[in-house]
Amino acid sequence: MEETVKRFKKRLEELRVYDHAMGVLYYDMETVMPKGAIALAGDTLGALSKTSYQLQIDKAFVADIQAILAHPDAVDPITLCEAKRMNEARERIACIPIDEYVACQIESTAAFAAWQKAKAQNDSSLFLPHLEKLIDFKRRFALYYRPDAPAYDTMLGQYEKGLSTETLDAFFRDVQSALVPLIDRIQKNGYQPDTSFLEQSYPIWKQRELTKYLMQVMCMDPEHSACGEVEHPFTTNFSKADVRITTHYYENAVQSSMYSVIHEAGHATYELNIGDDIARSPLGTGVSMGVHESQSRFFENYIGRSEPFIEAIFPKMQELFPEQLAGVSAHAFYLAVNKAEPSLIRTEADELTYSLHIMVRYELEKQLIAGTLKVADLPEAWNEKYREYLGVDVPSDAMGFLQDMHWSDGSFGYFPSYAIGSAYGAQLLNRMERDLDVWTLAGEGNLQPIIDWLKERIYQYGCRLDPKELMEQAFEAPFDPKYYTEYLTKKFTALYRL
Amino acid sequence: MEETVKRFKKRLEELRVYDHAMGVLYYDMETVMPKGAIALAGDTLGALSKTSYQLQIDKAFVADIQAILAHPDAVDPITLCEAKRMNEARERIACIPIDEYVACQIESTAAFAAWQKAKAQNDSSLFLPHLEKLIDFKRRFALYYRPDAPAYDTMLGQYEKGLSTETLDAFFRDVQSALVPLIDRIQKNGYQPDTSFLEQSYPIWKQRELTKYLMQVMCMDPEHSACGEVEHPFTTNFSKADVRITTHYYENAVQSSMYSVIHEAGHATYELNIGDDIARSPLGTGVSMGVHESQSRFFENYIGRSEPFIEAIFPKMQELFPEQLAGVSAHAFYLAVNKAEPSLIRTEADELTYSLHIMVRYELEKQLIAGTLKVADLPEAWNEKYREYLGVDVPSDAMGFLQDMHWSDGSFGYFPSYAIGSAYGAQLLNRMERDLDVWTLAGEGNLQPIIDWLKERIYQYGCRLDPKELMEQAFEAPFDPKYYTEYLTKKFTALYRL
Repeated sequence: MEETVKRFKKRLEELRVYDHAMGVLYYDMETVMPKGAIALAGDTLGALSKTSYQLQIDKAFVADIQAILAHPDAVDPITLCEAKRMNEARERIACIPIDEYVACQIESTAAFAAWQKAKAQNDSSLFLPHLEKLIDFKRRFALYYRPDAPAYDTMLGQYEKGLSTETLDAFFRDVQSALVPLIDRIQKNGYQPDTSFLEQSYPIWKQRELTKYLMQVMCMDPEHSACGEVEHPFTTNFSKADVRITTHYYENAVQSSMYSVIHEAGHATYELNIGDDIARSPLGTGVSMGVHESQSRFFENYIGRSEPFIEAIFPKMQELFPEQLAGVSAHAFYLAVNKAEPSLIRTEADELTYSLHIMVRYELEKQLIAGTLKVADLPEAWNEKYREYLGVDVPSDAMGFLQDMHWSDGSFGYFPSYAIGSAYGAQLLNRMERDLDVWTLAGEGNLQPIIDWLKERIYQYGCRLDPKELMEQAFEAPFDPKYYTEYLTKKFTALYRL
Repeated sequence: MEETVKRFKKRLEELRVYDHAMGVLYYDMETVMPKGAIALAGDTLGALSKTSYQLQIDKAFVADIQAILAHPDAVDPITLCEAKRMNEARERIACIPIDEYVACQIESTAAFAAWQKAKAQNDSSLFLPHLEKLIDFKRRFALYYRPDAPAYDTMLGQYEKGLSTETLDAFFRDVQSALVPLIDRIQKNGYQPDTSFLEQSYPIWKQRELTKYLMQVMCMDPEHSACGEVEHPFTTNFSKADVRITTHYYENAVQSSMYSVIHEAGHATYELNIGDDIARSPLGTGVSMGVHESQSRFFENYIGRSEPFIEAIFPKMQELFPEQLAGVSAHAFYLAVNKAEPSLIRTEADELTYSLHIMVRYELEKQLIAGTLKVADLPEAWNEKYREYLGVDVPSDAMGFLQDMHWSDGSFGYFPSYAIGSAYGAQLLNRMERDLDVWTLAGEGNLQPIIDWLKERIYQYGCRLDPKELMEQAFEAPFDPKYYTEYLTKKFTALYRL
């Protein structure tokens, strides 16, 4: 068994090398690579991915995994858990013929480039044929893996193990019935806070200073983290030693990058606080997208959009933007960044209407994968749903179904994790308030005790526990979406004096 | 033979993939990677490098190379040339035991990190033990390859095929005897131009705008190029589709990044104009360091520090820096950026004294490799040479032997290519003036015809010709360093009214 474990660990290290190289190539592609190199980068990523795939399905490696799984008592718990996770990952990809797997990687890169162009030129015809191919690939892959399950449910499970359309249908019904009347009341009420000061010119080089400050407030160790600039912000990590967030600066919307940075810093905080015992292990990363989004949205919304936290960081903002924020109080800023109004763009949406944006995407991708919605009909279907749920007219595909990058690389089933994550976050906050004086800490800009609490209950485990097990352990209760709807109802009732 | 060539080309593509991945990892490490991830990146680079090494020395691949070389008439000229170059590269590394090769890669990364720390803290003791190890590795590798040649000559040949200490000793004697008296006369003359306006505060975010403008003037296609920020500027390329320059901004020295950008853009111009027929071939890159430096120093000095070119770009500089350059004429700027004065830092040195900085490094590394200078004695030997050749006292190791990164990754034999490159450049200029009205073009900021001329004679060939063959073809004459000393004598005699 000793030799088996040694070989197994050696292969894990080889796989880490390929993951690291591919991760850096991808990060580079998004942040600094000149656009004309996309074909080159696509070929390189395709080739590395092929080698990594072969290493993962290699018979000798599979035999080692199975030997470990057959003798769970003969190895330490981390090795056993690694073998389980590798086996799960292998089962998901081993069923895919290698040529199709590689073709899909290459198509993903091409589709991503086409999406960028389509969005920039507001020309959906450049992207739709790629989207069709990606859907075909991903549907087929899901059915290879679980021939008897609906393909979309299988995709959901890739981002959040155990999540199903049944759960989500119920979840979105609850959300819709709690929030739509509240949104209506706000609309009818007529009052909206002044947001004109947010739309002034905030020089980008000064916004970069704000990013540095916010990363510091979020306790991100500069020895192990950095921030890049991209079209659509994301976070990536190459072990807890190297965690990268990204942002996009808009000169006339300082709150955009500001909250994007806090959101991504939430993801980064999770990765930076993985247990040292699994730092270089495949277990050493966040367990699921839902749990990840629970952290990003916890810091973005529950902390970042709270009045005490805004009071804590506002002096620094006034120092950076004395002219733009002249005569503006922390309270006025708090009101402005919490303005709730149905709108077009998900990433700019307020906390209250956000889940409706997700609901649109959830319903559409469910139909696309089931084949009940044709790709050619997607743009119009998108626009209809926005009219129905949010009451807004979509003026262009660039501001419509082309706005998000997720479908451009085939991440179907990802969106719901944003909504589930928000709901996890609200329940976590409720539990945390029993142990910590959260709002005093937020008011001091002292987030370390909050991060320590989350590390203790969530971060340190990496992928050692399944999402459900992990969250129930953290909640000390089953998951319940009521904390989410209650939180939103309370906050926005007060904000809008309803 | 068809099957052989197919297998050979497939392996070249595999090697390209590893080169690309390693190149991006290295670029990332230098530009954006957080410092605390160095060990992780080092391990990943070491592992990729090991795989690439194995692919290069693999017996079946070597057999294919030899089959191609044995039937030169059975393949196209590009394939034949590829086989020759791969064989040369293989011969250089195949003689090195794999464990030593990998250990050296890992040591290089560690040494680089130690050098960064040593320089930042001005503590040579952090770096010297690593330098000693690197010298050991590189000397041993040179002797594995050419047991009967002096190790340092073998190292020189890695950067400039055919270059020897004999040639360089003669070259530096010529340079020294022409330039030292000229430098003396300038020193005794007492006149120096006003440079005070260069030392004002030039905000870095505005310097970034200047970089964009200069890249445009240098005809760098933004679809295929980018600029990163680093400690010590360099250029790298992952095929002609993706060429990256880098710079370092100093708030109180605008000319530093300005000329660094033009220098690196000269390297980039070479890579961006490789022939399309060899774009993804191992032949599709600059042939040697000397030829590369001839291009970077051609644009930096012969064009970039000429009065007509400064007149062409000065309006843009005044637009970017109206306060800093108020009342400054293009002529005054020209005088200031050509101030000749013995100094401490190579990268900031003027054209005239530059080669003396190289001479110091050349003589020291020659002795280090020969073992006639001990690593422990390097700091003092460095300081003595600076006193002897440049008449300056070195106040700290950080401003002394730790200033350059080249020794930190074992690039011994690299420095002389800067001086040889300058001399190549002067002879190229002389030849170019017979075909083009260089100074009218420079005065219009119209560098495209100059780049086209260089593409025709040099760039398009990539590695298809040896450096000597390539340069003699471009010069239509043998190499002669007199063009270099004559150019400098003429320029600085006029500038200093001697």
